[in-house]
Amino acid sequence: FLPFAKSALDGKSSFNAVHKKHTFKPKYQYNGKEVTKHFLQEILNILLSYINKSLNRNSKVLDFHHPHQLKEGLEGFSLELPDQPDNLEQLLVDCRDTLKYGVKTGHPRFFNQLSTGLDIVGLAGEWVTSTANTNMFTYEIAPVFILMEDIILKKMHSFVGWSEKEGDGIFCPGGTMSNLYSILLARYHFFPEVKTAGMRALPPLALFTSAHSHYSIKKSAAVLGIGSENVIVVKCDERGKMIPEELESSIRRAETKGLVPFYVNATAGTTVYGAFDPLNEIADICARCGLWMHVDVCTYLLTIFLHTLCHIEASSITWNPHKMMGVPLQCSAILVRKKGLLQECNQLCAEYLFQPDKHYDVSYDTGDKSIQCGRHVDVFKLWLMWKAKGSEGFESQINHCLENAEYLYHKLKSRTDFQLVFQSKPEHSNVCFWHLPSHVRNMPAGPERDRELHMVAPKIKAKMMEEGVTMIGYQPLQDKVNFFRCVFSNPATQREDVDFLLDEIVRLGREV
Amino acid sequence: FLPFAKSALDGKSSFNAVHKKHTFKPKYQYNGKEVTKHFLQEILNILLSYINKSLNRNSKVLDFHHPHQLKEGLEGFSLELPDQPDNLEQLLVDCRDTLKYGVKTGHPRFFNQLSTGLDIVGLAGEWVTSTANTNMFTYEIAPVFILMEDIILKKMHSFVGWSEKEGDGIFCPGGTMSNLYSILLARYHFFPEVKTAGMRALPPLALFTSAHSHYSIKKSAAVLGIGSENVIVVKCDERGKMIPEELESSIRRAETKGLVPFYVNATAGTTVYGAFDPLNEIADICARCGLWMHVDVCTYLLTIFLHTLCHIEASSITWNPHKMMGVPLQCSAILVRKKGLLQECNQLCAEYLFQPDKHYDVSYDTGDKSIQCGRHVDVFKLWLMWKAKGSEGFESQINHCLENAEYLYHKLKSRTDFQLVFQSKPEHSNVCFWHLPSHVRNMPAGPERDRELHMVAPKIKAKMMEEGVTMIGYQPLQDKVNFFRCVFSNPATQREDVDFLLDEIVRLGREV
Repeated sequence: FLPFAKSALDGKSSFNAVHKKHTFKPKYQYNGKEVTKHFLQEILNILLSYINKSLNRNSKVLDFHHPHQLKEGLEGFSLELPDQPDNLEQLLVDCRDTLKYGVKTGHPRFFNQLSTGLDIVGLAGEWVTSTANTNMFTYEIAPVFILMEDIILKKMHSFVGWSEKEGDGIFCPGGTMSNLYSILLARYHFFPEVKTAGMRALPPLALFTSAHSHYSIKKSAAVLGIGSENVIVVKCDERGKMIPEELESSIRRAETKGLVPFYVNATAGTTVYGAFDPLNEIADICARCGLWMHVDVCTYLLTIFLHTLCHIEASSITWNPHKMMGVPLQCSAILVRKKGLLQECNQLCAEYLFQPDKHYDVSYDTGDKSIQCGRHVDVFKLWLMWKAKGSEGFESQINHCLENAEYLYHKLKSRTDFQLVFQSKPEHSNVCFWHLPSHVRNMPAGPERDRELHMVAPKIKAKMMEEGVTMIGYQPLQDKVNFFRCVFSNPATQREDVDFLLDEIVRLGREV
Repeated sequence: FLPFAKSALDGKSSFNAVHKKHTFKPKYQYNGKEVTKHFLQEILNILLSYINKSLNRNSKVLDFHHPHQLKEGLEGFSLELPDQPDNLEQLLVDCRDTLKYGVKTGHPRFFNQLSTGLDIVGLAGEWVTSTANTNMFTYEIAPVFILMEDIILKKMHSFVGWSEKEGDGIFCPGGTMSNLYSILLARYHFFPEVKTAGMRALPPLALFTSAHSHYSIKKSAAVLGIGSENVIVVKCDERGKMIPEELESSIRRAETKGLVPFYVNATAGTTVYGAFDPLNEIADICARCGLWMHVDVCTYLLTIFLHTLCHIEASSITWNPHKMMGVPLQCSAILVRKKGLLQECNQLCAEYLFQPDKHYDVSYDTGDKSIQCGRHVDVFKLWLMWKAKGSEGFESQINHCLENAEYLYHKLKSRTDFQLVFQSKPEHSNVCFWHLPSHVRNMPAGPERDRELHMVAPKIKAKMMEEGVTMIGYQPLQDKVNFFRCVFSNPATQREDVDFLLDEIVRLGREV
């Protein structure tokens, strides 16, 4: 590729050069080497400057523009693809502009999503991964990464209390795919004929998840051909936790209707409330009814919580290191208790990729465990971060985030211009609240006040994005009108940032 | 995170520092900044040195070790995760070792897979992407990347000849997922009730793909609850192309059995032979029978070929820029002709993520089109490379690879110690051949010779990996015993590398 770099700098079509010359010219190669070095050094400088800006409280979280504005081209930043190649200097400008008009998810005042922060070691891990540019399907072409995945999965198994004789798993492109795997595996475990004969050979299935659980359970059921209406939504209490008695009666009702229950998803840290379903009670019900119990721990894993998990007979667990552990996107794993199931469920033994007569131990080839063929290397950044922090380091980082949540909770509790969506202390890093501008505060409770309150968060959010100094998400939930949800996962966030967020909401609330 | 970097350098647990101090100390922050800069500069130096080695013909493609050797730890390179955090200097050593014991997929003598090469601009794109660390689900947090995906997809639509009124698509984690999308969409298009009611509400379905097609079609059918045995495998000719008459009779036979045909996958560049199914004839059959036609163009897209595609009424197309276009892994897109179908098929309208009352045009939020929730940014590296090369640049790069394939074909044709698996010129960059060491060459055709020949490729490959100066894959296929498959996608590969590969095979063949 070296000649491309050179010719791109010259502003000429990169590949024609290679096309015409079938041998490398030493001089050309030398130039390419220097050009490559210069170009990547400039990229590093751009990234370092971006990292410093991301961490600087005086810099904006985002410089918002509407889609049509960005499409029209801002200050020479054109997204359109020209017919003629651009030179490397222009590409550097493009990279700078791409970052400039994006959102600084590593900024200490970005509270919009649970995957935030900018861990330097994790980042280095991603750069190394992309430079290695390989694929997870065989040991042959990814020996080190394959073994790292094996080691990390074993570490995770020991964390959730599985013995050496049990436990399998794989890294997936995101938590939704991990949850999809869990249903796929449960279905195959009870009905292995589904792999060849399909859903029509099976009785009508039913699976269960709480009203506050992630929508990925319904989405997966639709994809897998089970159908979203066969996902039975179990009622939650006011705090957003699944009610075990409701689960039991839902199971009975489904059976009465002729459905065959096979799977329950329990959530440990729901998306909006950060609520923990009562895992022990759900585990008992699953054991009694012979159902697969999946635990969706998308949001966090902490030692104290893990000690609980250890005593639960979960059949599978979704664990997303790209959330509370702060690993750069994407990094998600599905852990499966039953050994060999992943392979049996997904293998097709394509001989062109997985030759049985290779000279190494082919049990390390993971391609047949996956529903993908090529699979991105998501494990290295996590491995490197684990080396840098140790398990204790991750725990302290998460504790820091939970303390921020508690700090915000206490602040909100003491104020009359804010109202908590639920009164109890946060169990996780989520804090849900309404802001009550004076005109709302003075209204009597009722549908009129609700209508008014419903519009407060979107209006504040719109102004917030235009100004760009902080970012927080909002949503309605069941009978609750639009409220803010604050989540903490960035270790760079401090109490002063929490204070700043509330001040901003109040200030913007005055203008709406 | 800055304090982490500092404390990691001190060899202390990174996060305890943050945990104990709730405010940033300016001095500390300064130190962190310097440490970050130093650390990432060292990472860049390691990566530059790796890139130079990858391109140096005198360096090895791989330094092979068996799993147990790597697990035991080589020259101090330990994969195990310690309880105590390591310092940054150790992490740098680990990054160097990770690359050292990996496979240099960008080496000009790596012929093992179709995703090879090391494009510097694409690499820079990945580094920028990982530093931006965001998610493709909403315009809100990925405004620039969302628009780039939109622009690239439109560009792809115009390439395959779709008008402005048609055409949709999304980037997926790999070609198998793109193919899965195509079946999912076809099923929903004909039977929208499947989303809620599942496969049991549908008649028994059948889909069709050739014997030489990728195994992802069967895998997807298993995942989607259709069942792998409802994938009807259509016979190919000697060259690996689907026989249209066989497709027609397969469709008729399936109907006779009470199955409902709905989908045909045509492959443009099969995995092993690089064969092109007769797209026009298949399109005619699909039009006549009212079936969804998918074209799996995983391997390449070239202007001449695209001109053919333009006139085909394909309902969906899988396009993998991470193969012949040399984009770093992963980068794959599913293109869908019918507008709105992706959204209808996959949307669940989770309000916590996709608020309808946002202040910008929410039609740019792509999360509801996807079967994932979080989705990695795969588009930026492609966008940046397209800027650097222009469409012409990609075409020249691909032509160079095809010329290498033709060069290899002619070389093999003229020799008696090699035998081509099929006699016709390569249509794609795949060249399939047997090496005939003298003891095999002198044997009469028959099962005994086949048994002997079957062992040649694995034996040579084993030695090749031990020595590590080049890499090529092999496999059996139907009645053909193990043969080598050479694929070209790395523009750095020149004729001298092709010569080198054959010399190596002959040399190693003498020793087996």
